Amino acid sequence: MSYLGIGISPGNVASYHGGKMKLIDQRLRLTEVLLRCSVSVFALLALILMVTDTQVKRIFVVEKRAKYTDMKSLVFLVVANGIAAAYSSLQSVRCVAGSMKGSVLFSKPLAWAIFSVDQAMAYMSVAAIAAASESGVIGIRGEEKLQWMKVCNMYSKFCYQGAGVVASASIASIAMVIVSCISAFSLFRLYGATQRRLNLAVMK
Amino acid sequence: MSYLGIGISPGNVASYHGGKMKLIDQRLRLTEVLLRCSVSVFALLALILMVTDTQVKRIFVVEKRAKYTDMKSLVFLVVANGIAAAYSSLQSVRCVAGSMKGSVLFSKPLAWAIFSVDQAMAYMSVAAIAAASESGVIGIRGEEKLQWMKVCNMYSKFCYQGAGVVASASIASIAMVIVSCISAFSLFRLYGATQRRLNLAVMK
Repeated sequence: MSYLGIGISPGNVASYHGGKMKLIDQRLRLTEVLLRCSVSVFALLALILMVTDTQVKRIFVVEKRAKYTDMKSLVFLVVANGIAAAYSSLQSVRCVAGSMKGSVLFSKPLAWAIFSVDQAMAYMSVAAIAAASESGVIGIRGEEKLQWMKVCNMYSKFCYQGAGVVASASIASIAMVIVSCISAFSLFRLYGATQRRLNLAVMK
Repeated sequence: MSYLGIGISPGNVASYHGGKMKLIDQRLRLTEVLLRCSVSVFALLALILMVTDTQVKRIFVVEKRAKYTDMKSLVFLVVANGIAAAYSSLQSVRCVAGSMKGSVLFSKPLAWAIFSVDQAMAYMSVAAIAAASESGVIGIRGEEKLQWMKVCNMYSKFCYQGAGVVASASIASIAMVIVSCISAFSLFRLYGATQRRLNLAVMK
């Protein structure tokens, strides 16, 4: 996966770092840990709020219960947040371990793997929120011309909690997008660093 | 915006390049041009297919016409694809101009701007497709428990063309996601390259 076929390990990169670079690296690592923890917390919160969101309405003799399984998009939101929470928890542990050791933990292939999964997570969470929001908009305003009636006037408590779910999932999603940028930075700057070897070779 | 407060222009980076690096740079630029052109073409195709998608049904004496403005998510899809097509066309011109000059055109702030807008475009197009797909799934299968009836059995021609729109927009979206990775690479490798100056300073 090396850009020039010349490998450079993150450990070597770390050894070049001056004081400023080390400080910035530490701050970046701390930011990453905080963001990954935020993703875990808010994605889990969204999941719990969604799964516990239910409302019963009695219409004459018929009892109707609204729950997240009534909408495919909300099931997708629950699954996506579950995956994001679990993945981010694992990554948080890795980041904390890296911070405690004070070293860049991962190799280039691992950096590629983390970058790829981070990207996938970010896009998945954005897609899940977009789909759930679309259902939410139809639930609140209806689609008159298609005769899809609004349901939030009937299940207002369910919809208010649902709005909280989307808000919480959105915070997790924004954090995930920023994390994916940080992992892109962590990966791609390694390719710039390979130039040092070229330069040294030229200078010799 | 400099990582270490030490600026390095892409022009300088380019001047360090060996033969291999130049070749890879050229291939990367060519890939970027092709991908940006693909985004323009497929986003424009999705827009045209969507805007021209219409079907009339006569139910007794009432005439009903299905069109994209009946669904908010399809309006969003049209707007998102319009923006993506216009932006990618402009970026394609910039890339082609860069390729013809044979140099890396942009400065670091411009690289940051392009990276940011590319990211925004990629997430916007994924969100638009997710929202439109959710509407599409409801249109095809309905949401029985919410009494949102399926409409695609009635407007099958409209829905088939709509599926084509989503397919075309998805190709544009995948290309946009890859482009956003390339612009992340183009930007963040500059930060690795700044180390050369540090190293030279240390060596002195």
